[in-house]
Amino acid sequence: MIEFVNCFTVPADRVDGFVDQWRQVNAYMVTKPGYVSHRLHRAVTSDATYAFVNIATWDSADSWREAHDAGFRALLSGPEWAGIRPVGALYDVVHEGAAS
Amino acid sequence: MIEFVNCFTVPADRVDGFVDQWRQVNAYMVTKPGYVSHRLHRAVTSDATYAFVNIATWDSADSWREAHDAGFRALLSGPEWAGIRPVGALYDVVHEGAAS
Repeated sequence: MIEFVNCFTVPADRVDGFVDQWRQVNAYMVTKPGYVSHRLHRAVTSDATYAFVNIATWDSADSWREAHDAGFRALLSGPEWAGIRPVGALYDVVHEGAAS
Repeated sequence: MIEFVNCFTVPADRVDGFVDQWRQVNAYMVTKPGYVSHRLHRAVTSDATYAFVNIATWDSADSWREAHDAGFRALLSGPEWAGIRPVGALYDVVHEGAAS
């Protein structure tokens, strides 16, 4: 398993519309081999550096790479994605805990 | 419930020691009222903007705020934290899914 953490900078006037446009890409990605799960986070205050952070679990880095194909890139080519900047990378979980 | 997403920029020569120093702060935070759970992520490649990302769940924004107290700040005052820059904010989960 591997985690893809993707932080999005979104212009203030586009934040409310972001989830709908993101859903279209997500609907494509969840059909890909190796997709496991995801959680999209929206900042509760407007001064957050990243208005949204998506954490997606994939079964491997190779699956993640192969899923970002021409179909994926086509979905991100629309004008609604201009000005939105993702900062993403692959991660391992190295420490976790929960209240007892 | 609220999610605290905290992305850390860490100098390359400090990445290997980061988890140990982070554990000391984490051990303090998990004792605080309202702490629910956390997952610390380490980037699998050295070119990631953020070498580490922590996702912590708290029962409320107030609990999260109150936990970041004088004891917390004292733990972060050591020289090992110089040069490490966190970018963090509070988030709601607005979309999630899992492979069927």
